[in-house]
Amino acid sequence: MKYQTAAMLVIGNEVLSGRTREANAYYAAGKLFEAGCKLAEVAIIPDDREAIISTLNRLRAEFDAVITSGGIGPTHDDITMESIAAAFGVELIEHSYIVQAMTEHFGVEGLNEGRRRMSRVPEGSRLIRCEKTIAPGAHIGNVFILAGVPYIFESQIDSILHRFGDKPYQRIEIEVELPESLFAKQLTDIQEQFADVEVGSYPGRCGPNPCGKICLSGQDAERLQQARNSVEQMLEKISTSQ
Amino acid sequence: MKYQTAAMLVIGNEVLSGRTREANAYYAAGKLFEAGCKLAEVAIIPDDREAIISTLNRLRAEFDAVITSGGIGPTHDDITMESIAAAFGVELIEHSYIVQAMTEHFGVEGLNEGRRRMSRVPEGSRLIRCEKTIAPGAHIGNVFILAGVPYIFESQIDSILHRFGDKPYQRIEIEVELPESLFAKQLTDIQEQFADVEVGSYPGRCGPNPCGKICLSGQDAERLQQARNSVEQMLEKISTSQ
Repeated sequence: MKYQTAAMLVIGNEVLSGRTREANAYYAAGKLFEAGCKLAEVAIIPDDREAIISTLNRLRAEFDAVITSGGIGPTHDDITMESIAAAFGVELIEHSYIVQAMTEHFGVEGLNEGRRRMSRVPEGSRLIRCEKTIAPGAHIGNVFILAGVPYIFESQIDSILHRFGDKPYQRIEIEVELPESLFAKQLTDIQEQFADVEVGSYPGRCGPNPCGKICLSGQDAERLQQARNSVEQMLEKISTSQ
Repeated sequence: MKYQTAAMLVIGNEVLSGRTREANAYYAAGKLFEAGCKLAEVAIIPDDREAIISTLNRLRAEFDAVITSGGIGPTHDDITMESIAAAFGVELIEHSYIVQAMTEHFGVEGLNEGRRRMSRVPEGSRLIRCEKTIAPGAHIGNVFILAGVPYIFESQIDSILHRFGDKPYQRIEIEVELPESLFAKQLTDIQEQFADVEVGSYPGRCGPNPCGKICLSGQDAERLQQARNSVEQMLEKISTSQ
């Protein structure tokens, strides 16, 4: 049974302070869309134990799966693993596989306190390994705990994506050189006619020559094509009556 | 009394489907940091009435202020104003000032249904006008309802920023050519010594020549400088002992 809805929980003060532009939820959003899984919420919260526990518990109860990003490194601000263990009410344990892999890579003397910290996962987790790093992510219940560094996050999410979605979403975009207000009513009618197609309208600059886009997305290519025809006929009709 | 904490509520299917990379929360994060207001959470949710109501009510109870972005245009998927009215338990009313401004701009015959839709705000709102658009944002309680189109959002948030924060945050970044795990313990000690400075560590690529950054932020320039000295001395000591 694949996950049909998901939430992303981005953990990191650096995003909330404007230092870092969020990239992982953006990457995941595109991949989940292509996989056919609905990304229903993204929450960006600080490296704060109580915020992680309460937000994670809300999201994992509400959606099929939760993907977290960030806070699994060796420094004091990396508290995601211990906070998620607390959210699940389980212990944080040192995982023997990770300790062994770290020891092989860094040597016994290289297994310092920071690296031991990175070998801890919530009890009962499975590991999410990837080639980009020795320290794996973890999977417990319906929660996938991934790294914050984008190239590692991307590699990890690619490795779990087969668990998400059944039928890929597709998107069609139609350029529009009319102000939205001129076709808003007609577009509402088209949305009502195509309940299985999501119809969005995204304006460009205001002014005498606006150029926006009408965006159609859904899982049925034929219905998308029918909706596109309806939109194009509607726009044609309005343009010629101007 | 200025707002010391804020949350951003981004409303838009286009962000969750990976079509559009989120830009407004990123812009707001940088501006709030500079203003000295802590951005405590960003929530990205779909154009869905129940999601807007429940998320807005949670955020406005939890933080000093909430800034929303998106869903205030003329089309069927623009349901932010009506959902926020419902969240506050007030009526959605047609605002005479906006109707008048639209009539002056578009003429009586130009005031179509879509534009009338854009003249509706929750009862009791004050308007947030800006030069970039005729349709204003709205301010009700501790909630600021702004546009989704970035150049309009930016102009609107700049006009309300004087209400946020007392003392600007500042940031110092220090480049580090050591793996995080080698200085994790010492950095924990520095964080404990400087409770009023937020100490973050952000790794670059893994490998033999890692280049990450230690990031210090806070509201007191002198304390930031002291923390920087401590970090630099710590790094120097570790480097020479390698």
